[in-house]
Amino acid sequence: MVASERVTLVEVGPRDGFQPIGPHIPTETKIAYIQRLFEAGVRRMEVTAFVSERAVPQLADAAEVLAAAQALPGLEPQVLVPNQRYCEKALEAGARFVAFVLSVSEKHNMNNVRRTPQDSVEEYRGLVGVLPEGIRLRINVATAFDCPFDGAVDPKAVIAMLDQVVPICPGAEISLCDTTGRTTPAQVGALFTEAIGRFPGVKNWVFHGHDTYGLGVANVLAAHGAGARIFDSSFAGLGGCPFAPGATGNVATEDVVWTFERMGISTGIDLERLLDAAEQALTIPGASAGGRVRNAMHSRRCAQELA
Amino acid sequence: MVASERVTLVEVGPRDGFQPIGPHIPTETKIAYIQRLFEAGVRRMEVTAFVSERAVPQLADAAEVLAAAQALPGLEPQVLVPNQRYCEKALEAGARFVAFVLSVSEKHNMNNVRRTPQDSVEEYRGLVGVLPEGIRLRINVATAFDCPFDGAVDPKAVIAMLDQVVPICPGAEISLCDTTGRTTPAQVGALFTEAIGRFPGVKNWVFHGHDTYGLGVANVLAAHGAGARIFDSSFAGLGGCPFAPGATGNVATEDVVWTFERMGISTGIDLERLLDAAEQALTIPGASAGGRVRNAMHSRRCAQELA
Repeated sequence: MVASERVTLVEVGPRDGFQPIGPHIPTETKIAYIQRLFEAGVRRMEVTAFVSERAVPQLADAAEVLAAAQALPGLEPQVLVPNQRYCEKALEAGARFVAFVLSVSEKHNMNNVRRTPQDSVEEYRGLVGVLPEGIRLRINVATAFDCPFDGAVDPKAVIAMLDQVVPICPGAEISLCDTTGRTTPAQVGALFTEAIGRFPGVKNWVFHGHDTYGLGVANVLAAHGAGARIFDSSFAGLGGCPFAPGATGNVATEDVVWTFERMGISTGIDLERLLDAAEQALTIPGASAGGRVRNAMHSRRCAQELA
Repeated sequence: MVASERVTLVEVGPRDGFQPIGPHIPTETKIAYIQRLFEAGVRRMEVTAFVSERAVPQLADAAEVLAAAQALPGLEPQVLVPNQRYCEKALEAGARFVAFVLSVSEKHNMNNVRRTPQDSVEEYRGLVGVLPEGIRLRINVATAFDCPFDGAVDPKAVIAMLDQVVPICPGAEISLCDTTGRTTPAQVGALFTEAIGRFPGVKNWVFHGHDTYGLGVANVLAAHGAGARIFDSSFAGLGGCPFAPGATGNVATEDVVWTFERMGISTGIDLERLLDAAEQALTIPGASAGGRVRNAMHSRRCAQELA
């Protein structure tokens, strides 16, 4: 293991994690978590989404949250947008990094953004056409492995989708998302290997996974083995998918940090500070936490305090 | 993936899982779980241990439990023994498969079986010398990666230990155990690759892991990738280590079954029946459950019932 090896974690708790929580989280609480995560060393974060307030009332305070995140020196906050209209709102609010979401699976795309995948591709084309210079861009390719409605997704369909979207903006970061947590390391490794080989011009590949079936970290490592160096994760394992019954949260940031650091791969994140934020997150009304390291280290930290 | 590929899971819940539970589990309850696991397709199981009743009162009914397990046609029950004296007790009770445990780490071996690793090696030599023909044998090499007292264990020390014990009984099955759950897939893969390469005469290599830090399944897959085809796991993720504060259970059998089957690798185990047993296990007073698939499938199964 090369000592200088490092990976980048994108903390998606404030968006993916907070989004499914029913009771409104006060805006200042959200901002306080973003601040704490930043102080733990997080330098990339999906801080909110610009989406329909009716569909996702929890994120109605997107502009205010984004402004607070932009004020943290060195933090690169990204915001999720489902279409060109909300992308414009995000830009008006000062966003400098937008993440456009579309799904390979038609049924999931219809449920998630109310249009066909093909319409989302055209939406993306339009969005790229009017994006001001200097704004960073990511595509979140949802259901890249498995769909809550249709089950396994054919890797050929994912590649066909990439064949369409990559040329539209070759500099965009691309996140292949395991929306349901039902994919396996073998599938993750195979798809990343194929995609990275096929699109050598894409510099930033991301894996976004859930831990619903206990494969969160294993899938992260499979993506890493195939060449991905950026990983989405959520502190305290917050998150979930509104369309996947039983789906639990994103892979926990603390589990990913613990694993990479244990393997000699730097994440730049201070695990102790991160754990403080994760334990605090359990107090958010309506939050449902996951991950394993938090519990393991909690007992250990209590034992140290008693010793 | 070859369709006919398969792996063997050794269900260790009745031993490793029940052992740390304080309130006594009635013997007939233990036997009922063994029966249910057998009916789910489990064909290898560590059903109990012959150890000091004072040290592990929960397993004082070892002879009765073993007798019931032996009566199940096609089940191959193994029992853990810490030394020659208890091996004899196990054989008197009818055991046909004994698992001898010793640790690479001196401190863990002293705590676990009250002798130095070198004394355990000699104990093992004596045990093998008097073992009747036809009795199957396994060595559980504890702290093969990490020690709760001393941290990371040097792989060279594990190989040196194997250099001593393998020639004593080359036909014995060998289980390399991650006692703390703190090892990583990289370490697991490296050690199995080295050990399997060095001892081609050993036919059965086992990985025994815990899920304390969320790496249970990832480590299983790393061992599989390096050539291991037998895996210890515990239904409902029951288990723990009395000497590792915060250590949670063994990797959950249902997580391992789900993963392998999803990868097209047969385990011979019926997941639905296994989940029934695992959910029932939550009702055992004092039990602390782990794993992820149980929760994920529980919600899914409830949703199906409501639909």
